[in-house]
Amino acid sequence: MTLTSKKPRLGVCYYPEHWPREWWADDAARMSAMGLAQVRIGEFAWSRIEPERGQFDWAWLDDAIETLHRAGLAVVMCTPTATPPKWLVDSMPDMIAIDSAGKPRRFGSRRHYCFSHEGYRRESQRITRAVAERYGRHPAVIAWQTDNEYGCHDTVLSWSPAALVAFRRWLAERYVDIEALNSAWGNVFWSMEYRSFDAIDLPNLTVTEANPAHLLDFRRFSSQQVKEFNREQCLILRELSPGCDLTHNFMGFVTDFDHHDLAQDLDVAAWDSYPLGFLEQFWFSADEKIRYARQGHPDVSAFHHDLYRGVGCGRWWVMEQQPGPVNWARYNPAPLPGMVRFWSLEAIAHGAEVVSYFRWRQAPFAQEQMHAGLLRPDRVDDVAAEEVRETAAVLARLDGHSSVKADVALIFDYQAEWMTAIQPHGAGFSALRVCFEWYSALRQLGLDIDILPPSAELSGYRMVVIPCLPVLSQTFVDQLRTVEASVIYGPRTGSKTMHFSIPENLPPGPLQSLLPIKVVRVESLREGLLESEADFSVSGWLEHVESALQPELRLHDGRGVLFHHARHRYLAGLVDSATLQGIFRQMASEGGISVRSLPEGIRTRRHGNVHFVFNHCAETRSVAALLPGTDALLMGARELPPAGVAAWVGDGVRK
Amino acid sequence: MTLTSKKPRLGVCYYPEHWPREWWADDAARMSAMGLAQVRIGEFAWSRIEPERGQFDWAWLDDAIETLHRAGLAVVMCTPTATPPKWLVDSMPDMIAIDSAGKPRRFGSRRHYCFSHEGYRRESQRITRAVAERYGRHPAVIAWQTDNEYGCHDTVLSWSPAALVAFRRWLAERYVDIEALNSAWGNVFWSMEYRSFDAIDLPNLTVTEANPAHLLDFRRFSSQQVKEFNREQCLILRELSPGCDLTHNFMGFVTDFDHHDLAQDLDVAAWDSYPLGFLEQFWFSADEKIRYARQGHPDVSAFHHDLYRGVGCGRWWVMEQQPGPVNWARYNPAPLPGMVRFWSLEAIAHGAEVVSYFRWRQAPFAQEQMHAGLLRPDRVDDVAAEEVRETAAVLARLDGHSSVKADVALIFDYQAEWMTAIQPHGAGFSALRVCFEWYSALRQLGLDIDILPPSAELSGYRMVVIPCLPVLSQTFVDQLRTVEASVIYGPRTGSKTMHFSIPENLPPGPLQSLLPIKVVRVESLREGLLESEADFSVSGWLEHVESALQPELRLHDGRGVLFHHARHRYLAGLVDSATLQGIFRQMASEGGISVRSLPEGIRTRRHGNVHFVFNHCAETRSVAALLPGTDALLMGARELPPAGVAAWVGDGVRK
Amino acid sequence: MTLTSKKPRLGVCYYPEHWPREWWADDAARMSAMGLAQVRIGEFAWSRIEPERGQFDWAWLDDAIETLHRAGLAVVMCTPTATPPKWLVDSMPDMIAIDSAGKPRRFGSRRHYCFSHEGYRRESQRITRAVAERYGRHPAVIAWQTDNEYGCHDTVLSWSPAALVAFRRWLAERYVDIEALNSAWGNVFWSMEYRSFDAIDLPNLTVTEANPAHLLDFRRFSSQQVKEFNREQCLILRELSPGCDLTHNFMGFVTDFDHHDLAQDLDVAAWDSYPLGFLEQFWFSADEKIRYARQGHPDVSAFHHDLYRGVGCGRWWVMEQQPGPVNWARYNPAPLPGMVRFWSLEAIAHGAEVVSYFRWRQAPFAQEQMHAGLLRPDRVDDVAAEEVRETAAVLARLDGHSSVKADVALIFDYQAEWMTAIQPHGAGFSALRVCFEWYSALRQLGLDIDILPPSAELSGYRMVVIPCLPVLSQTFVDQLRTVEASVIYGPRTGSKTMHFSIPENLPPGPLQSLLPIKVVRVESLREGLLESEADFSVSGWLEHVESALQPELRLHDGRGVLFHHARHRYLAGLVDSATLQGIFRQMASEGGISVRSLPEGIRTRRHGNVHFVFNHCAETRSVAALLPGTDALLMGARELPPAGVAAWVGDGVRK
Repeated sequence: MTLTSKKPRLGVCYYPEHWPREWWADDAARMSAMGLAQVRIGEFAWSRIEPERGQFDWAWLDDAIETLHRAGLAVVMCTPTATPPKWLVDSMPDMIAIDSAGKPRRFGSRRHYCFSHEGYRRESQRITRAVAERYGRHPAVIAWQTDNEYGCHDTVLSWSPAALVAFRRWLAERYVDIEALNSAWGNVFWSMEYRSFDAIDLPNLTVTEANPAHLLDFRRFSSQQVKEFNREQCLILRELSPGCDLTHNFMGFVTDFDHHDLAQDLDVAAWDSYPLGFLEQFWFSADEKIRYARQGHPDVSAFHHDLYRGVGCGRWWVMEQQPGPVNWARYNPAPLPGMVRFWSLEAIAHGAEVVSYFRWRQAPFAQEQMHAGLLRPDRVDDVAAEEVRETAAVLARLDGHSSVKADVALIFDYQAEWMTAIQPHGAGFSALRVCFEWYSALRQLGLDIDILPPSAELSGYRMVVIPCLPVLSQTFVDQLRTVEASVIYGPRTGSKTMHFSIPENLPPGPLQSLLPIKVVRVESLREGLLESEADFSVSGWLEHVESALQPELRLHDGRGVLFHHARHRYLAGLVDSATLQGIFRQMASEGGISVRSLPEGIRTRRHGNVHFVFNHCAETRSVAALLPGTDALLMGARELPPAGVAAWVGDGVRK
Repeated sequence: MTLTSKKPRLGVCYYPEHWPREWWADDAARMSAMGLAQVRIGEFAWSRIEPERGQFDWAWLDDAIETLHRAGLAVVMCTPTATPPKWLVDSMPDMIAIDSAGKPRRFGSRRHYCFSHEGYRRESQRITRAVAERYGRHPAVIAWQTDNEYGCHDTVLSWSPAALVAFRRWLAERYVDIEALNSAWGNVFWSMEYRSFDAIDLPNLTVTEANPAHLLDFRRFSSQQVKEFNREQCLILRELSPGCDLTHNFMGFVTDFDHHDLAQDLDVAAWDSYPLGFLEQFWFSADEKIRYARQGHPDVSAFHHDLYRGVGCGRWWVMEQQPGPVNWARYNPAPLPGMVRFWSLEAIAHGAEVVSYFRWRQAPFAQEQMHAGLLRPDRVDDVAAEEVRETAAVLARLDGHSSVKADVALIFDYQAEWMTAIQPHGAGFSALRVCFEWYSALRQLGLDIDILPPSAELSGYRMVVIPCLPVLSQTFVDQLRTVEASVIYGPRTGSKTMHFSIPENLPPGPLQSLLPIKVVRVESLREGLLESEADFSVSGWLEHVESALQPELRLHDGRGVLFHHARHRYLAGLVDSATLQGIFRQMASEGGISVRSLPEGIRTRRHGNVHFVFNHCAETRSVAALLPGTDALLMGARELPPAGVAAWVGDGVRK
Repeated sequence: MTLTSKKPRLGVCYYPEHWPREWWADDAARMSAMGLAQVRIGEFAWSRIEPERGQFDWAWLDDAIETLHRAGLAVVMCTPTATPPKWLVDSMPDMIAIDSAGKPRRFGSRRHYCFSHEGYRRESQRITRAVAERYGRHPAVIAWQTDNEYGCHDTVLSWSPAALVAFRRWLAERYVDIEALNSAWGNVFWSMEYRSFDAIDLPNLTVTEANPAHLLDFRRFSSQQVKEFNREQCLILRELSPGCDLTHNFMGFVTDFDHHDLAQDLDVAAWDSYPLGFLEQFWFSADEKIRYARQGHPDVSAFHHDLYRGVGCGRWWVMEQQPGPVNWARYNPAPLPGMVRFWSLEAIAHGAEVVSYFRWRQAPFAQEQMHAGLLRPDRVDDVAAEEVRETAAVLARLDGHSSVKADVALIFDYQAEWMTAIQPHGAGFSALRVCFEWYSALRQLGLDIDILPPSAELSGYRMVVIPCLPVLSQTFVDQLRTVEASVIYGPRTGSKTMHFSIPENLPPGPLQSLLPIKVVRVESLREGLLESEADFSVSGWLEHVESALQPELRLHDGRGVLFHHARHRYLAGLVDSATLQGIFRQMASEGGISVRSLPEGIRTRRHGNVHFVFNHCAETRSVAALLPGTDALLMGARELPPAGVAAWVGDGVRK
């Protein structure tokens, strides 16, 4: 991972086409005065750039960019491909994606295209080239964002004729011989054998579940289509806008394509951070959704920060930061006062180069009229504006810092999530969720974490945590064999081959060369069906393991749940958080890492030599034990109020 | 509102075509003996009137009408357009509506037509003309019902090709210039701009939510289609059946078209009252669904009575009154003994001209065979028959009365419900539900209420209650400026322009000229996320208000929830019922209206100079405090049993 | 019912095509050594038998059969029609079934065919003939299984063009005259009258519910299609494989076709027993799903055993016995140690001729890779292997026994379940569930039960229990008139005519000739809405009965719930289990049958002269009171552990 040392800056998302031209100069001046350094524009503007085919209207956009430039603002330019205009869709109606039930996903909102449609791929390149030719070398333009939130609204998987043709071609290239595919997928199982690649359908609308190997390959193919779509744009941008950073704004909790893979064509990863929406929309309990309603879950933003730091190989931005209530969750509360500043500093603490707010001014019309901005629709400052100014002031006092490599590496792989989604075996099982819960347990011990793909270099880490990784490549196993860290593997790790079969030697497959265990049976348990022992409990998932090892944790009938061999541990079930923390504490101790139990809702993060403490609670919490003397504080206090952030400068080396 | 002074009468819905002809005379004699005065027929009889195109069979219907006429019964004739026969559908299959998922809504039950299909519109007029020519001047026929329960089974919105063509035409007429539409809808937002009206789609099957302005116009268009369909029938009926009342039987809780608008072509509004089904199917808690399982919610029937009194400008009927268990709710319990009489008297108390039972005899076949009637399928009296006789006896003792104009006007607008359905912002938010809950709070104070559209004349009211009305016309605001009543506005009132945008001066938009407040932020709160203060709580919805006014209710952080200026109050959130009642009590006091806190399940209503008390509980309740001395009672007792009704004659002027 | 006296045997399901040919001989030897006597093969092997049209590859299957034969194993051969290969589907794409929403149910898993497609019917006969010609007289082949689990994955009802054509033809044959159909269905109701059979649609996609008579006839037709599909195969197998038993493996809780009817073409009924999956997937409470998570519900397997003993007229097998965790339920826990042996002995106790395990070895690939087998994917014995050996050892010690005719007959009719599914009237009402709950109450009294269709001979039974049977044939009523047993009828019995109408004399229709009662009203009650009396409660369903009889149970308002006349009782509601047991206890006493209250989770069963006691609890239970002296025990103990089975030899005559 490359470490960044540029001083973080603030930015904003702006849609000049939404506002009277006479407002633009004032907007730019106020942005600048607010401490914003960069402005993202052009994201959804295709119908204004090219009102009909081949008729380009650059004047307004030239003007907008000049206006921003004159105010000293840098510009992040976008390719507008997330919103192809109606004339384009009408000229090739089959560019529309088809949903898994066979229904078209029509024009009238956004992301109404199929990644596999060759005609639209050409259009995407055509408009990218047009915009890049116009602005690629403009002095204000420092970076490009491709498209917008690939995969949002469930748009990666398209079940269209175009996708079918491309999928068959992809399979033919991958397997060459149809018998190789039949064998790899186990198609003999229900007489599902194909006699040619052209006989293969997309794996939807089957009577009962489709072959998981078929589904997995379709997901790999679909992810690849997104990567290629993006790469086509990147090649043009690199040619026409040399020296600019290329990025994409990934959406939180979207996992239908491989972000690590796609980001190989980018310079910087970016993500869109909506803490209150994510809390409301995802798996959290009703209790948590109430307790953290106005702050967000203490680990969700951090998880994504640490994930995208890995996706971007160290370089990452928050492209869209929630500035107030959003419009798209089931319920949309307002953040506590101070939370916009809090979220901004939290991102900085995790190493963001940029925190950019969405959006400058709340739009009074169309789909997102209930989404707050830094300004209200009546041009008056909204609550967040002052918090942005405060954030800018804090940043001015911080030196440029690098994110230190963490002591702990946590491995997350998008394919793992696809596999547990295809075959949960127990309702709701999700590799992503297991990773998140392990991450949360680690963070409650005060640890900083790097979230990395299996392909990452692991040397230098003291703990490696692999919560759920069904497929293990030989390369990865080889690295695990030689890494110095303590390593722990969670349930289902090593449980599948690359073709979604059970390994010949049973799970954990190739891990058996590192740890003498064999998973001979698994069971999924409904909520409330616990295996409770005196000191721990297993719920949701439990594996039956054969091993000559003495288990470190065992059920009353003697079955082992935690196995330990040399530097390797295997946890054969989903255990309660306290037990998980106990295991991590032991591993940390072996690695010489100090840990501490943080109070509920309190989290810490070190960035360079600055140590941060964040209070996610709606109440004031004493964090005296986590701080040096008050005199040493850069900000904050020993009694940290709601939305409170404390920081101080500490030593520059690892604890 | 015109006040009615005709003496109320009872009626019944009858399907002679369902029964042997030799039963008809006996049926008619028994109806008459039971105290029934009118009979609705012909509602679903198209396949018997016209078994094949152009081949009319009038003989049976002539005979049925004569039979009823001879027994002294008046006839309410129907147009049979809710059930076009199979030969008609087969002759133009595209007359079928299409659901929002793109699926046809086929023949095999009822309401299988699209309001926008021109061919079916011609057929509707053709059969209306045929029936009206035959019976328009028959001496027994006193009134006509058009079609049946427009909108029932979600049939207002059709996503068919016919609807698309008509919608484009409607938009072209409304906006003239496509740029006017693009601007009104804010189509620049996601490059949703259209270059011609012919490029516009129906707003379904989009990738994520469609533009709310697009959806709102589609709902307005769809409502207009229903109105025009109905008007076409009315024009024919007026021509061929002069002097007869025209009515339509609206279905409870159906809001997909504007009943106030449609009723302009009618003489009398009618609604179909199924108290137990409505309790079971709508938003009530499981507790309420059990507590009132056999009585219905204390405010649901009354709410509809008061609503349709307004829809009918004072003239309204209950066209279908539940006489026993129905067949269509999730659960279908039997009413408590006495409830049919109770519901009948409740309707009379609210000013109904007619209470008509659905249906005469329970059908032993087809879809509604589990729906009770006044008679059992074996021709024996069912439970309700005796209660109808009792009701008739009570009516005989009551003079003809007029419904007095109430002290309180509550404003409900169908468009408000469409808007909150399009953009709830918090799950389940419904303008209708807010209106209902405010109505319930008012009723618990013993108040009588007129439910009116924003276009109504408000002079003479002492309190005007506007629970949730996003769009305010200038005319309405002008009226509110001059009205003498105390006025209260609920959340989201004035929050949108007619094109579903946020007003330039922010909500409550034009209300700011009456009350110096500005809503600068709104938040929706999940169940359990309360803002609880010592004396009140806000849940579900909370607005942040800027105002120089001293709030009359405020949260612990000082934010105001209730603002008061001159005669105007604005309530910036959904508060608990006790708080709501407290506010209304204060307003009533200002208006010189006396209120009283009714015990749970007890409701009162005054009709002319008759005062009624209703016990909706399953237990006997003491209502002595609400009654004069026992001697003065027309009916009932101070200890009012379940399903009990008390009444007495009081002064003829307002309290 | 014919009683069987063959000694029960064990078997297994095997897919040689899934494994390397060099493993087959070892597999066969191990099967034999494990105590298995028969092997089912060929079930899904069409694509291997006929890789392309007309190109048969018999060599591998010849070899597989020979290998098994040489190891002394008998073969149950299958017709592979549940999995038509892709080349066949591509040659006639319209053979695919269509779901009720109009969506095709495509290739890619199994059961992707429409029973009404004539082309596929010919293909089914062609492949059946081919396989039967090859192996019909092979000495190893002792039986044939047709297809696999008809109806699984909701595959009985197909809404395809082929089904429409066949349905119209079926109706024309049944009704001859379209007016007869219109009259039978009551199509006058909503102008649903048809002018020809060709005008009739399938009853899906209607605006609101379709005519229940239409739905019922479509279900009868669909059931008939399955029966005919199966019979076509049976005729070929009888011709080409004389002397072999014909069977089909019915799936538990699948009720969409009439198993009694279909089984008339079979020699042996078989069912697939997955106790843990059934507990998880069906109507049981969360508490029960946890309490019995690893044992299955105490009555589910027994219910099916007793049902299929009736379906098979005494001859029945368990074709697929769960041997460990399955893959298809929401949650898939592991059975308690011993449960495979337990379930096997339970089946034997109920009279199974064969218990056959699914499957020999867990497949590491494709859809069921998480479904356990007797062997693990790595060829090592899984947990169940040893339990199978233990079972074989027990069987060796048991003599061949016959299942004694039980004292109690419980009547279940598939059509009853269709009718309550079409018209539940209260959410979730299911005739099957009522039957199950009455069955469970009987079993808790220690009774053995025969579950029989209404067409069964009832002489010799001492109690006849008819929980819910809406349609009563005159033949059946005549039998009930003469039977010597005490008879009890549950709610909705006799409530409908064969055309889904209310009987002219009201429910219970023809029963009124046996018992002077009339059901004049019914009501369905939501959960929590009880009619609770001191000693019993009614929930879910309550009927209002007119009768001169003195009720044996009555509500506080005097309405009767239980009526008794001569040998006949009618229970007019769903009562609590204790009350139900009290009634059964009384009836048993009248019939001279001794009963006893079994502890929770304990069940008994007598087979021949062997008495069994089963402990379904997760804890040890004392069953001393149910056993003779320890010395007399064939197996088990007075303190019966979890998964424990006790047995002893008692007298050969009825208690």
